[in-house]
Amino acid sequence: MTSPLLIRPPTPQDYAAWKPLWDGYNAFYEREGPTALPDAITQATWQRFFDAYEPVHALVAERDGKLVGLTHYLFHRSTTRIEPTCYLQDLFTLQSERGQGVGRKLIEGVYQHAQRVGGHRVYWQTHVTNTAGRTLYDKVAEHSGFIIYATTV
Amino acid sequence: MTSPLLIRPPTPQDYAAWKPLWDGYNAFYEREGPTALPDAITQATWQRFFDAYEPVHALVAERDGKLVGLTHYLFHRSTTRIEPTCYLQDLFTLQSERGQGVGRKLIEGVYQHAQRVGGHRVYWQTHVTNTAGRTLYDKVAEHSGFIIYATTV
Amino acid sequence: MTSPLLIRPPTPQDYAAWKPLWDGYNAFYEREGPTALPDAITQATWQRFFDAYEPVHALVAERDGKLVGLTHYLFHRSTTRIEPTCYLQDLFTLQSERGQGVGRKLIEGVYQHAQRVGGHRVYWQTHVTNTAGRTLYDKVAEHSGFIIYATTV
Amino acid sequence: MTSPLLIRPPTPQDYAAWKPLWDGYNAFYEREGPTALPDAITQATWQRFFDAYEPVHALVAERDGKLVGLTHYLFHRSTTRIEPTCYLQDLFTLQSERGQGVGRKLIEGVYQHAQRVGGHRVYWQTHVTNTAGRTLYDKVAEHSGFIIYATTV
Repeated sequence: MTSPLLIRPPTPQDYAAWKPLWDGYNAFYEREGPTALPDAITQATWQRFFDAYEPVHALVAERDGKLVGLTHYLFHRSTTRIEPTCYLQDLFTLQSERGQGVGRKLIEGVYQHAQRVGGHRVYWQTHVTNTAGRTLYDKVAEHSGFIIYATTV
Repeated sequence: MTSPLLIRPPTPQDYAAWKPLWDGYNAFYEREGPTALPDAITQATWQRFFDAYEPVHALVAERDGKLVGLTHYLFHRSTTRIEPTCYLQDLFTLQSERGQGVGRKLIEGVYQHAQRVGGHRVYWQTHVTNTAGRTLYDKVAEHSGFIIYATTV
Repeated sequence: MTSPLLIRPPTPQDYAAWKPLWDGYNAFYEREGPTALPDAITQATWQRFFDAYEPVHALVAERDGKLVGLTHYLFHRSTTRIEPTCYLQDLFTLQSERGQGVGRKLIEGVYQHAQRVGGHRVYWQTHVTNTAGRTLYDKVAEHSGFIIYATTV
Repeated sequence: MTSPLLIRPPTPQDYAAWKPLWDGYNAFYEREGPTALPDAITQATWQRFFDAYEPVHALVAERDGKLVGLTHYLFHRSTTRIEPTCYLQDLFTLQSERGQGVGRKLIEGVYQHAQRVGGHRVYWQTHVTNTAGRTLYDKVAEHSGFIIYATTV
């Protein structure tokens, strides 16, 4: 039988438990080894979760006192809305905990926060080839044909 | 011979000239008639362009004293960057002025602003079927396979 | 015997009960009658309390189901701190409820929020002649000689 | 004869010339030696001047290619305004350059920026005993009796 899953914002004390999940997530996007995310960025991001001025937030999934998943999201303006839009930027579940609804529960935690604060549109990006992720995403949101163009200037 | 194109931020005095372009852009996304964008949103967005606290910006393209195009963009946080990311949300050229580089010049204006303020990633969304737009976008940026999932909560 | 006082953030449903307190506060600063605060500002401020993108917050004091006090505060940057500073801008207690610790409890509610989110400096302005207010302020904070200069440009 | 004074935003290249002015300013407030401002704060503040997401700005005063003064200011919300308020937090002129209008020109530079972006109220704090500063401040702004209370929570 599976112990219950707790979805909650991290506290500063969670850093050591959160960091391996963040590293695992970054590795999935090939930000590891020589192309690893600089530590200064990790520190800045972690600090922003606890900075009342920054609309950058996190939730962690805890089971049996152990962190097994994370999501990071932020609110930003939109020219077609008065209220902010919620961009769910990161989502990660520990390999060993997959298929047990951790990702879905984290997404639902973001939905609840967005709803509570009046940011009624929640969106994220994923790669078109991310089949496992998209199986879940097709159940909790919709891909209506929009794609991303990006560049570095 | 074509008169030169001026790319510049709008001033409050440009409202009357900007509004028809904004309406044209919204009509392209079927935000017209019964599904038109509420006027309160247009007012809030216009106000944000001139609000020093809001990282929401606009550029207009002017030819012969007439506005022929617009772009709206904003800066927001990213968990994988210290500096902000630039989201180019809206881009529109008057039907009669297409094919003359107006869209490209507006995108380059955004690139220059982002570069100047240290927001080195610029991105936007477009619909996968927007062939005309994508012909230009493929020249000035890259679609590397990322797609959007969204929902209303 | 006095019923217990509840300090909590307002919900959108509190508008009708909050508005007379806000009007009473503004009247104290002679923003009434011909010099009343424009309603558009009241609407914008109320909306900001529920906008996840705005670091603008409120607390109300409730006794026996009735709102008897309010405080509005916001977080902003400081050049001498990494974390934000908390500016407590408005504080008001219903005339009939004064002298019962409402103002103090509201200030303490702000302190708790600031502490929780890492904004360790809380400050406010008051007029040098506000004797009643300063009796309380001298107990919960300190005036170390700093004064305000302001202008309209 | 005095060379002309140039008031302009700093560029990242100005760091080495700006830093001694910033140190001089901090020394005036006894943030030096064992009570010096941590370098991490200086780095964060300098970075924020060039971060398009942060409403934190600077101007420097340059004469004969040398920086002789600085001002740092930021925009933040107000519950009694729709547009932001401008808080001029820091102002400093090199000892050897005092009495030549550098401080006034820097303040006027802030006024111009605030005016351009619609933040019509500009304010700052000073200590009641700062006679030299107040001689200037009384000419360009007004102290109408408001004082600061602050605490650390």
